[in-house]
Formats: sequence, structure tokens, C-alpha cells
Amino acid sequence: MPTLPPLPPTLAWRGGLDGWLDLLDQTRLPHERVVLQLRTDATVIEAIRMLRVRGAPAIGVAAAYGLVLGMRSRAPAASAFVATANATARTIAAARPTAVNLQWALDRCLAAIATAPNLERLMLEANAIFADEVAMSERMGRHGADLVPDGGTVLTHCNTGRLATVGDGTALATLFAAWRAGKRFRVLADETRPLLQGARLTALELAAEGIPVEVLADGAAAGLIARGQVQMAVVGADRIAANGDFANKVGTYGVALACKAHDVPFYTVAPVSTVDVRLPDGSHIPIEERDATEVTELGGVRTAPPGVGARNPAFDVTPARLLTAIVTDQGVLLPPFAAGIKALRLSGR
Amino acid sequence: MPTLPPLPPTLAWRGGLDGWLDLLDQTRLPHERVVLQLRTDATVIEAIRMLRVRGAPAIGVAAAYGLVLGMRSRAPAASAFVATANATARTIAAARPTAVNLQWALDRCLAAIATAPNLERLMLEANAIFADEVAMSERMGRHGADLVPDGGTVLTHCNTGRLATVGDGTALATLFAAWRAGKRFRVLADETRPLLQGARLTALELAAEGIPVEVLADGAAAGLIARGQVQMAVVGADRIAANGDFANKVGTYGVALACKAHDVPFYTVAPVSTVDVRLPDGSHIPIEERDATEVTELGGVRTAPPGVGARNPAFDVTPARLLTAIVTDQGVLLPPFAAGIKALRLSGR
Repeated sequence: MPTLPPLPPTLAWRGGLDGWLDLLDQTRLPHERVVLQLRTDATVIEAIRMLRVRGAPAIGVAAAYGLVLGMRSRAPAASAFVATANATARTIAAARPTAVNLQWALDRCLAAIATAPNLERLMLEANAIFADEVAMSERMGRHGADLVPDGGTVLTHCNTGRLATVGDGTALATLFAAWRAGKRFRVLADETRPLLQGARLTALELAAEGIPVEVLADGAAAGLIARGQVQMAVVGADRIAANGDFANKVGTYGVALACKAHDVPFYTVAPVSTVDVRLPDGSHIPIEERDATEVTELGGVRTAPPGVGARNPAFDVTPARLLTAIVTDQGVLLPPFAAGIKALRLSGR
Repeated sequence: MPTLPPLPPTLAWRGGLDGWLDLLDQTRLPHERVVLQLRTDATVIEAIRMLRVRGAPAIGVAAAYGLVLGMRSRAPAASAFVATANATARTIAAARPTAVNLQWALDRCLAAIATAPNLERLMLEANAIFADEVAMSERMGRHGADLVPDGGTVLTHCNTGRLATVGDGTALATLFAAWRAGKRFRVLADETRPLLQGARLTALELAAEGIPVEVLADGAAAGLIARGQVQMAVVGADRIAANGDFANKVGTYGVALACKAHDVPFYTVAPVSTVDVRLPDGSHIPIEERDATEVTELGGVRTAPPGVGARNPAFDVTPARLLTAIVTDQGVLLPPFAAGIKALRLSGR
């Protein structure tokens, strides 16, 4: 397999206070590598809304820099700085109203300038959010790398790597860390219908790193697991309940069932900010149902017959009993998960 | 939901011995209805290999007519008729190595000409296979209709209807029969990547019959089953081993695992010709691996990055322990399946 050239960073601030935000346009991947130079909050909002940047951690960082750009152009007097920042943050948050991490990052910026209402302080906080995300990915990767087999094949689902974050990612961070540590393995990437994040993004990231990767139809995973062709499966998580049940990209639950049936270790990797202890178990996690056209069309071309609709849940819930371990930035949790989750330091976020 | 116009037949011989095989090109569905006129065995082999005709029973009938066309063009002397037919049958059988029904139909043709080595006898046998398939679909539909819930939702995978056979189908025949008997239900059709037979064909057939149908990404099935949104799952089979293990379109095994985990009845519907008693269990069923581009492209558009390949097994094997019952043209088999399979009349069909 040819190694692809390295990818540009998902996003990166260039220069000082008068700089700009470089942002890799993910809607053009895997075929084109277009880096946008964003110099206004309006262009950041557009990039978030149009999914040019996606993945909760990456969206949060983009929003923070969007706030910097918005405040730089508005340049309010010190007395109006906080009020203007609040208004600017509201317009940015509206770009993806359900993205909790976007709001969290903006709130962190607003808290920082409460006592130091100036652009320098805001910029420092955006940089700190960026650095914290990178460090968190690094910790998840380090904790998870030991679990990756040396030799054999790892299955993953959806995209949980650099393109979803500003660091190495979540589930993929464990593979990048293991690879750098000298372990060798192959990866099977579920294509992840309907939006094909596995085929478009995960395969791209791994190939760009020189890690052997093949894609597969989501339905093919269970049969390959049954035939002994997978030694580990690793996925991300969108929300983890207090008992370890977790929601992730639709299709994850089926992978977990097949791994359990054939004694293949199955891991989820997520920052502790993903844990929502207010939810006792997975049945309380709301499942977003997205537009049917994501299933009935591809690139604007209809695949289903005219008039036929679709079910399109974005997530499914995997019960904790199917999990071998939960890898977090604070360490690896083993069953029973409720105790380990209770012991996490959740306050930071 | 609008009712679609009726479909042309999946395949039909037109005219007498000098006629041709009309074959609906299923790769063009649901948007175009192109009927090919096949006059050579090479074009029939191409149609089978390229899935212009697919589904075990339809492939068997197409193969029989392909043998007729091959022998018509070769026109051997009577003394060489059987040997030439054997050689021609071998090339046709190689078009889809996992499809036992293809081999069965060819063997039936070869047996028929053993004592009457001429084209007329071969043509009569192909016509008889066609008629038997229509009658067999009718019997499977009748036997399976009682299992279909009145109210609720039925999940199916791939296409097992009129487009897979020359009659009402296998799994879908049970739904057509139940619907005609007055039962009312909804259908969820797995889109069935990589070739989207569910979205393109199953949804088309059901909508054309006025049966409510929605499509879904294959990965979404397990989560919907877990949430109680499926009351029955029914699929076809490409090959059934002596113990009831069966091979079917890739993705079937995952549906079976999810049904078992949530006590949803799971059925396979297939003619007894699908049973291969020479295979003690599913581990002996060969799994065809198809071209990677079926996965790395969707609707002719490349989705994966350049240079990235794919695993593309066409089938997976579902163990008998996940099956609630096997519906055949000779009746409904319940566990333990080995005894019921032993009692089938496999020779006369």
C-alpha cells in the first residue's frame, strides 16, 4: 500500500494576535487537501456549520479561535469587552446548537476574560484549550497503547483521530501511540454509513501515517470477527453513562456484539468529559435521528426508489457488559465500571 | 407513500428454441428499467458475475438457460453433446462459486440430457426449472406467512424477493403472502452495502406492492432491534449446512446476533435446494471475496482515499443456534435442525 503524504493539521493558529486560523476543509477530503485561512468569526461559523471542521474537540477549539477573531475585528473598549464577547459567543454557539463541547469551550473563554477583559487573555485561553486537547489525546494514546496487539488486526468504526480533534484523537490515538512505540498491526476501518467517516477520514489518517488499513462495509465486520480475523476492536464514545453504557456512532453496538460472541477485546476511548454521571445507564441517552436523505442519497444522487424514506439514528448504545475496558485521559477503567467512573476527577470539564 | 409501477419479470425466455433470454439488469435499478436480450452463454455468465441477475433461484434459472444458449451455439454432434454440455456447465458454474443453486440447476440439466442428449430436452428442463421455482416461491410464501406478525415491524436484509427469483422470492415471499392474506405490517430494509440490494431492490419491490418500507444503514439495525422497534427478522440463504448453519449476504450474521440478544424471532427462508448435506456445518462453506472497488466506491464515486483497499467478503455464516426456524418449500423446520434437514426430500425437490 502506498503511503500517502502527511495531512496538514486539522486546525492551527498561525502567527500572533494579528494571525489567522488555518483549517483543513474536511468536506473536500479524501480527494483534495484545502487549507482555509480564516480571519473572521463569520468564516469560522461557516466552517463549523458546513462541517468543514467536525468532531467535538476540534469544534470546541475552532469556536475559541473564532471568538478571538470576532473580538479582534470588533475591538470594543475595555468597558464593553465582556458584553461584546458574550454576544459574539452566542452567534458562534448557534452554528451547531447541539454540540455541547462548542458551548463548553466558549464558556471557558468567557470565564477567563471575566477578570481580564482583553484580547491577550482571550488568545491565551484559546491556546490553552488547544494545548489541553493535545495533551488529553496524548494521555489517551499512552494509556491505550499497551492494549494494542503487536501483530494482528485492529477493527475500528467511524473517525476518532486527528481529524476529529487537534491532537492524535481518541480511539485512533491509541493506535498512533502503539505504532510509534514500534508495534506493528493492520487496521480494518468500517466505512461507517451513512456519512462514511471511516472510509473517507480514518483510512486517510492511517494511510498518511503509513499504518496498513483496509476499509470494509459495516455489515462485513461480524463475519470477519467470527473467522478470527480481528484481534481487537476500538471505538470512541459520544456519551458514557454512570454504569459504563455508552453512545457512539450508529453501528458500534453491532461490532460490540460480534466481539463478545468471539472473545475479541472491545474498547472505547474517550476523555472523561464524555462521562455524564447524571445518566444512570444507557437507556437515558437521547438518540438523535438525522435526516433520511443521508441514507437515501449519496452526494446528492438518490440510491433508494422515489418516495421511499429511511430510519437514520445517528448513534446507538452499547451496554457496559460488552466492554473489555474504557480508556480515558485519566487511565484505563476495568469492569465493574460504575466504581471506576465514580472515582474519576470530573470537575475540570 | 406512492405505489410504484409494476416491475418487468426478473428473467423470462422469449420464443422457442431460437429465442432469447430477457433479463432485467438489476445493476440499473431502481432508477432505470433495462431489459437485456441474452443470446449467448457468455452474456449470461457476464450477467451472473456482474450481478445483473442475482439471488440463488434466479441465478439457477439463468444458468440453465445459459446452458441452453451455449449448447445452441456450439451445436455439437449427438455423440459429443454430453461432454460439451459438461464443459459448458463448468464455465457457467464458475461465475459465482458460492452459489450452490447454480450448480444444482446445471446438474439437473445435465441429468436430464444423460438419456436424451439433445437441445430440445435441455430446453424442456430449463423451462421446468423455471416453473418449479415459481411453484416453490409460492409454497415458501404460504409456509412462512403464518410467522409474520399482524402489526409491528419486520426487518430484512439484502433482496430476497421477485428480483432474486422468478416467483415471489424467498424471505419476501412470506411477506407478500402475509400481506395478501390481510396482515398489515411495516418493513425495515437494510440498505445492504456494498451493492445496496436492500435500498435499490427490496424497497422497490415492497413499494411497488404498496407495503410500507423504510431503508436504513446496515449498522443501524442492531440499535433499532435493541430499542424494541423490530418484531421479526427474515432473510434468505445462499447455502445451508447439514446442521442448519447457513451462508447469506454479508451482514446477515450481525442481524442474527442482535435478534438473539433481544429475543426477536429470526428466520431464514430458502428452497431445500439450498441445503448442502455434504457440509456438516457452516465452517465448510466457502466465502467468496469480491472486488474491493465495490466497497471503495459508492454509486460509482470513490469514497476511500487513493491507494486504500478493502476487504469485501460477499457472504457471512450464521450459526444454527441463532435461528428460530428455517422456512422451506417443504415446510417449516424447527430446532434441532439436523433432524429436520435429514428428513427433507432433497432429491426430488
